[in-house]
Amino acid sequence: MQKLVSGFSRKAGMIPGTLVHVGEEGGAPVRVTALRYGPDHAEEFVVEDLGTFLATPTPPGVTWLNVEGVHDIEVIRRLGDHFGLHPLLQEDIVNTEQRPKLEDYGDYLFLVLRMLYEQPSAENDDLVEIDSEQVSLVLGTDLVITFLEDPQDVFEPVRNRIRENRGRVRKSGADYLAYALMDVIVDNYFIVLERFSDLAESLEVAVMGDPDPTTLPAIQQMKRAMIQVRRTIWPLRDVVSALLRGESRLIKKATVVYLRDVYDHLVRVVDIVETYREMVGGLMDIYLSTLSNRMNEVMKVLTIIATIFIPLTFIAGVYGMNFDNIPELHWRHGYWYVWGLMLVSGVLLLLFFRRKKWL
Amino acid sequence: MQKLVSGFSRKAGMIPGTLVHVGEEGGAPVRVTALRYGPDHAEEFVVEDLGTFLATPTPPGVTWLNVEGVHDIEVIRRLGDHFGLHPLLQEDIVNTEQRPKLEDYGDYLFLVLRMLYEQPSAENDDLVEIDSEQVSLVLGTDLVITFLEDPQDVFEPVRNRIRENRGRVRKSGADYLAYALMDVIVDNYFIVLERFSDLAESLEVAVMGDPDPTTLPAIQQMKRAMIQVRRTIWPLRDVVSALLRGESRLIKKATVVYLRDVYDHLVRVVDIVETYREMVGGLMDIYLSTLSNRMNEVMKVLTIIATIFIPLTFIAGVYGMNFDNIPELHWRHGYWYVWGLMLVSGVLLLLFFRRKKWL
Amino acid sequence: MQKLVSGFSRKAGMIPGTLVHVGEEGGAPVRVTALRYGPDHAEEFVVEDLGTFLATPTPPGVTWLNVEGVHDIEVIRRLGDHFGLHPLLQEDIVNTEQRPKLEDYGDYLFLVLRMLYEQPSAENDDLVEIDSEQVSLVLGTDLVITFLEDPQDVFEPVRNRIRENRGRVRKSGADYLAYALMDVIVDNYFIVLERFSDLAESLEVAVMGDPDPTTLPAIQQMKRAMIQVRRTIWPLRDVVSALLRGESRLIKKATVVYLRDVYDHLVRVVDIVETYREMVGGLMDIYLSTLSNRMNEVMKVLTIIATIFIPLTFIAGVYGMNFDNIPELHWRHGYWYVWGLMLVSGVLLLLFFRRKKWL
Amino acid sequence: MQKLVSGFSRKAGMIPGTLVHVGEEGGAPVRVTALRYGPDHAEEFVVEDLGTFLATPTPPGVTWLNVEGVHDIEVIRRLGDHFGLHPLLQEDIVNTEQRPKLEDYGDYLFLVLRMLYEQPSAENDDLVEIDSEQVSLVLGTDLVITFLEDPQDVFEPVRNRIRENRGRVRKSGADYLAYALMDVIVDNYFIVLERFSDLAESLEVAVMGDPDPTTLPAIQQMKRAMIQVRRTIWPLRDVVSALLRGESRLIKKATVVYLRDVYDHLVRVVDIVETYREMVGGLMDIYLSTLSNRMNEVMKVLTIIATIFIPLTFIAGVYGMNFDNIPELHWRHGYWYVWGLMLVSGVLLLLFFRRKKWL
Amino acid sequence: MQKLVSGFSRKAGMIPGTLVHVGEEGGAPVRVTALRYGPDHAEEFVVEDLGTFLATPTPPGVTWLNVEGVHDIEVIRRLGDHFGLHPLLQEDIVNTEQRPKLEDYGDYLFLVLRMLYEQPSAENDDLVEIDSEQVSLVLGTDLVITFLEDPQDVFEPVRNRIRENRGRVRKSGADYLAYALMDVIVDNYFIVLERFSDLAESLEVAVMGDPDPTTLPAIQQMKRAMIQVRRTIWPLRDVVSALLRGESRLIKKATVVYLRDVYDHLVRVVDIVETYREMVGGLMDIYLSTLSNRMNEVMKVLTIIATIFIPLTFIAGVYGMNFDNIPELHWRHGYWYVWGLMLVSGVLLLLFFRRKKWL
Repeated sequence: MQKLVSGFSRKAGMIPGTLVHVGEEGGAPVRVTALRYGPDHAEEFVVEDLGTFLATPTPPGVTWLNVEGVHDIEVIRRLGDHFGLHPLLQEDIVNTEQRPKLEDYGDYLFLVLRMLYEQPSAENDDLVEIDSEQVSLVLGTDLVITFLEDPQDVFEPVRNRIRENRGRVRKSGADYLAYALMDVIVDNYFIVLERFSDLAESLEVAVMGDPDPTTLPAIQQMKRAMIQVRRTIWPLRDVVSALLRGESRLIKKATVVYLRDVYDHLVRVVDIVETYREMVGGLMDIYLSTLSNRMNEVMKVLTIIATIFIPLTFIAGVYGMNFDNIPELHWRHGYWYVWGLMLVSGVLLLLFFRRKKWL
Repeated sequence: MQKLVSGFSRKAGMIPGTLVHVGEEGGAPVRVTALRYGPDHAEEFVVEDLGTFLATPTPPGVTWLNVEGVHDIEVIRRLGDHFGLHPLLQEDIVNTEQRPKLEDYGDYLFLVLRMLYEQPSAENDDLVEIDSEQVSLVLGTDLVITFLEDPQDVFEPVRNRIRENRGRVRKSGADYLAYALMDVIVDNYFIVLERFSDLAESLEVAVMGDPDPTTLPAIQQMKRAMIQVRRTIWPLRDVVSALLRGESRLIKKATVVYLRDVYDHLVRVVDIVETYREMVGGLMDIYLSTLSNRMNEVMKVLTIIATIFIPLTFIAGVYGMNFDNIPELHWRHGYWYVWGLMLVSGVLLLLFFRRKKWL
Repeated sequence: MQKLVSGFSRKAGMIPGTLVHVGEEGGAPVRVTALRYGPDHAEEFVVEDLGTFLATPTPPGVTWLNVEGVHDIEVIRRLGDHFGLHPLLQEDIVNTEQRPKLEDYGDYLFLVLRMLYEQPSAENDDLVEIDSEQVSLVLGTDLVITFLEDPQDVFEPVRNRIRENRGRVRKSGADYLAYALMDVIVDNYFIVLERFSDLAESLEVAVMGDPDPTTLPAIQQMKRAMIQVRRTIWPLRDVVSALLRGESRLIKKATVVYLRDVYDHLVRVVDIVETYREMVGGLMDIYLSTLSNRMNEVMKVLTIIATIFIPLTFIAGVYGMNFDNIPELHWRHGYWYVWGLMLVSGVLLLLFFRRKKWL
Repeated sequence: MQKLVSGFSRKAGMIPGTLVHVGEEGGAPVRVTALRYGPDHAEEFVVEDLGTFLATPTPPGVTWLNVEGVHDIEVIRRLGDHFGLHPLLQEDIVNTEQRPKLEDYGDYLFLVLRMLYEQPSAENDDLVEIDSEQVSLVLGTDLVITFLEDPQDVFEPVRNRIRENRGRVRKSGADYLAYALMDVIVDNYFIVLERFSDLAESLEVAVMGDPDPTTLPAIQQMKRAMIQVRRTIWPLRDVVSALLRGESRLIKKATVVYLRDVYDHLVRVVDIVETYREMVGGLMDIYLSTLSNRMNEVMKVLTIIATIFIPLTFIAGVYGMNFDNIPELHWRHGYWYVWGLMLVSGVLLLLFFRRKKWL
Repeated sequence: MQKLVSGFSRKAGMIPGTLVHVGEEGGAPVRVTALRYGPDHAEEFVVEDLGTFLATPTPPGVTWLNVEGVHDIEVIRRLGDHFGLHPLLQEDIVNTEQRPKLEDYGDYLFLVLRMLYEQPSAENDDLVEIDSEQVSLVLGTDLVITFLEDPQDVFEPVRNRIRENRGRVRKSGADYLAYALMDVIVDNYFIVLERFSDLAESLEVAVMGDPDPTTLPAIQQMKRAMIQVRRTIWPLRDVVSALLRGESRLIKKATVVYLRDVYDHLVRVVDIVETYREMVGGLMDIYLSTLSNRMNEVMKVLTIIATIFIPLTFIAGVYGMNFDNIPELHWRHGYWYVWGLMLVSGVLLLLFFRRKKWL
């Protein structure tokens, strides 16, 4: 069972706003990349020295800072202090077990999103384990800062669109960029769902046909994975829905229609997850009734064999008795008569079972 | 288990608004038909050359364009660009796995509906599989455009009413036409429900009487089909309910009363589906208790036979022993006494079972 | 299983507002009765010729038209057209499978109510089957029209109160009459509930004591009947609640307090139905555990008999062997020693079972 | 199973506002007591002659009329007509199967409350049966009228506080008195809950340890009792919540804080009832798995005994055969060899069972 | 089963606002400590004599009074009367079985919170029992009073921050102090959740592998513990949510963002508890199917052994009969033929079982 809470004992009792990285320790050093673009230009570079970068005045156009790795608290604090991010926000960035949420700090919006990806299980191909990573996104005026737990290329398609000036991204503002990044993350959910689809199919075949001891853990594991996906997506839906209400001046009207599209996708994801949940719940029922059916079959075989032979054995026992005067024993064809009696009673019992539809 | 997600990996990471047909590949070429009518006239023709058609100025009256097949992206794009449809809307038309939804783009409304029809199963008449196809509908001023996945004659009754000037359709505007088309689609849901009705009845008879190994899959399949129907109808109800609020100037007051009728039908469909869901849930319970009952019966037979003969066999065994001095063996009527003993103990056990109501 | 949908295939694709009677075919001819009253007078007559009646000018006071039978579409249409009833409303009157609903057409209110009555089952007294009939009610200024599926005397108490000028009905307007008719219908629900009460009691006794094969279908049938009652009452509650909001000028302030009373009754009916649903759900649990308990008892008997005699039979078998030199066989009291051994082992096993509390 | 509906057939079809006592027939005559008080005085007397009492002009201060018994319709009607109570309200007083509710008639508030008390069960101490009685309360200006089904001393503590001028009741108005009476009723709920607490504990011990045939009915009975308590408390919560909104001029601001306290108590009662419901639901699960466990144990014993002795009996059977030439029979120590064989196979089987952890 | 209600019978019928300590009797005497601080100073002392303390005029800055132990009613009353706390509020402080709640008395806010901690179980490490203690908090202008049931050091981290002037607490007002105390309490919930996490894991291992009789009580106990945690946290969430709405002038704008952080934590706690609840519900299912699987295995062993040997024993019985003329007995290799027959039939049955996948 995956741990849902960890590292909290370390944090309990600390001053609110204290930056303590809660999450897996990333080994790689933090890498900050910057992408600056406008309708006519796009410039991309790795920020080697954060001090110099922050000291340089910002040229016009949209700036997208991407921070890969949140375990280096110093980097987060310097960025946060430079851009005036609230200490609690900074704390949420490094504490990577947040639920998706939206916080409106007036000058900037803070979004917590979560990436889902499948953790391959070495032992059993039918066990799906879902892992999630926090993606924090700050949306300011002409500014987007994203914080990833690990170096990942999930945003690469968006980066390419900016580089090659495809789509509307270069022509639009920072809010469209934030939308494009959310869209990429939500699109990735469908890949996890496709995996669910395959797994549900193979589990169903297993359960209907010949469930083995690994079937039950696989069902449970899938149930749990879906609880987890739902835990990630439900609050995200609320986040996007809050963005759609357009209460922040940072989200322009033209972007709302795109956010509505993301919202639609999320509703669909929720819908599909709920459907799978119901189906997997049904699998459990089938599994239990398959067990019952099997037991029934085992019992029938036992009953048929026992019921046929027990009376026969009794008859044989009777004529194995050593009484002085058992007349049948001395009949001429007594032995064959007894065989006849046994055959008849056996056949009668078989007919009885057939009438009961046990054969 | 039917796939709920497919083709998404193909789409992930693309620019929003990119037209990629997600759905089954239609073999037939796309066919566009136009129907133009007013109170006194109705003109119907196949659009052979889209360019010429779009270049021709539109005469007064309502124009209904029906596009059969959405896999030809070029057709969708040209129509969309001509009528000023948003790129995301065009994307939704070709990506035919949308949930029913309503989007108000100001100048036009975009509705996604879904047709339900039963997929006949060759192997087993008791397995009902429901398939659905997307129907996209754009409602503008004096304009309705419908997009179907496959050539279908579901709209034929409406077309006939226009041709023959029956009902109010010729006298009313484009919003009434949109209503009439939705009405036809919702009416078709009842046909699927009638199939459910028959199936639930036959399943109940099977479960109560003599469930066989196909009963369980049939119950599961029906459950799933109903989940799917619900997935289609619930959001459609919200769509119609949103139309009823009459916030769009494209829906005239006089049409709202008709939409309320569609809404009523949908509420009834939802109601019936929910009722069947509860009933099918009950079938599962009966199925499991029928299994238990059967097991009980098997066990009783085994117990009765075994319990009667085991003591008798023991008695026979006793007098089969080879001790030198077993006095009973040499009694005159010893053999018959033993038979008497056996009969008495057998009868006593039968009486015991009768008292337990096992016989 | 009762059919929830029927006759829809006949209707699908027709022009909205087409009158097609969906429901059982009533054999009797349609009968229209009129009751006209004011504070000082009440006049009652059968409308033999609808044309003459509708041509006669209406005197002051309240007019109540009661139409028994809705299968004669001509009658409905002529009444509807005379009083200006919307075609969709007329359609709903003849299509007698509506859910309870309220529609405000401005000049008149249209209410669909449903009568519940028990369908006696010839075979089994424990099977309760609930049938329902649609009662359509149009409330206009000084006008109430009621449409019943069958000739029934359910409104007789109200008619008597008008005839004998008892209560407030003669002094009040058409809205009070509508209330009085609804009140009579809701009061009848309690009669169905009393039947449930009796049945639940007898089912519980059966389930706790000695469930037989008819118990399970009876539980299922009762569950289903309650689903059906709920399907009728829930929407009716919304209907009355909508009337209570008093948005229509047709409902006078003084009548609202009476409608609140109807609403209270409905809430109580819902409450009672929900309680029975929970109780019947519990019956299913008891039924299943009674099955388990029985199985347990059967198994215990088998185990006790088999476990006692199997070792004894083995001992007898041993001394039935034909080895040349089995010393025990030639002991003086060998036979009695063996009996002693058998008795001791039998008694030990009985003590073992007693310690396990199986005896 | 307790009857939830009764006496309705008697009422159906009557004129609304007709007073028909629905409930158990109280034997004792109706007794009306009056308590008049102000900050400096309190006067208490039994109203022997209602006519005289009502004719006497009311002195200043609060008047509390307490009516014990509602089966004397004449008393209710005379009081009701004197104080201008609506006929439907009078009907609700005598029909003692109301749900808790609040009705605001402008000049006075009408509250229906319910007392809960445990009906002791003579046969079985583990069966808890909850009964409830209606308490109707009319709150007017300087007037409180309470109607009880039976003579009870539940209000005695409040009466004492008035007599002895303890607490704020004498200094406050009629609304505080109404609050004090509600508070006493709600406090009594906790006594019923304490009984649940004890019972749940003893049921849990029984279920975990050694459930007997009375355990299941006891669980069911407790479930049902809790459904009933919930049926009483949920609507009462709404009643108090409606009072809290302070829409009636009859409830003074200073009293609202006290009503909030009652509301808190009710929320706690709901909370505790829900918790017990979940726990008792869990008991059912444990009960069923205890049954399964027992069956398992029975089967194991049978299997162990049968599996050990069946092969041994077979061996004995083999050497009981009468073939002419069975060499083993004539071996010198053949008999002991066979014993050895039997011992070895028995020990091997015992080891097998131990490996399976059945022993 | 933990008692949810206790001591109420003592309280029923008392005057509202009567201080009766409901809860465990604390042995230690009540200890009151005061902490006064401002941006530049912090003073901390034990209040030995309450009278003197209350008589001394309050210096500027924030005063935090911490009362450890609420069983000394005199202390509560004197404090309450001095600071003008409502009698019902005083009653809630000493009656330590309140649900978390927020009450706005205008001049001060009253919050009831609950600490959760694990009660170690001596007997069984897998049984988790959660206990909770009430923490009452009064927030006035520049004043915070906290009431604890027992002397505890849970607030020590906050006290240290004030002493050492770390974080914002010295620079902020009483509302920030109240927030900091709530934050400390909520942070402690995560410690309880971590214990759940460990336990759920070990239970899952037990259930999947080899459930023993203690597993079921452990699951039940965990379920119950989670119900209890939820009972504590759900209302607390509403409390914080109400504070967030910022309707009280006592909560400054700057503090709201911190309260939002507490709210986020609570939502996460709720989320995790709900997830564990679903998982533990799943454990119950696995447990039951593990029981079924075991039964299946037991039955299979019995069936295989019995089914193989019963026919063989019958054959042996046949040739143990004493008929005069059984030809086979006198065949030369009859004995070996019979062994052959037995071997063949045994092998055939083994093959049958293998085909059934029972071996």
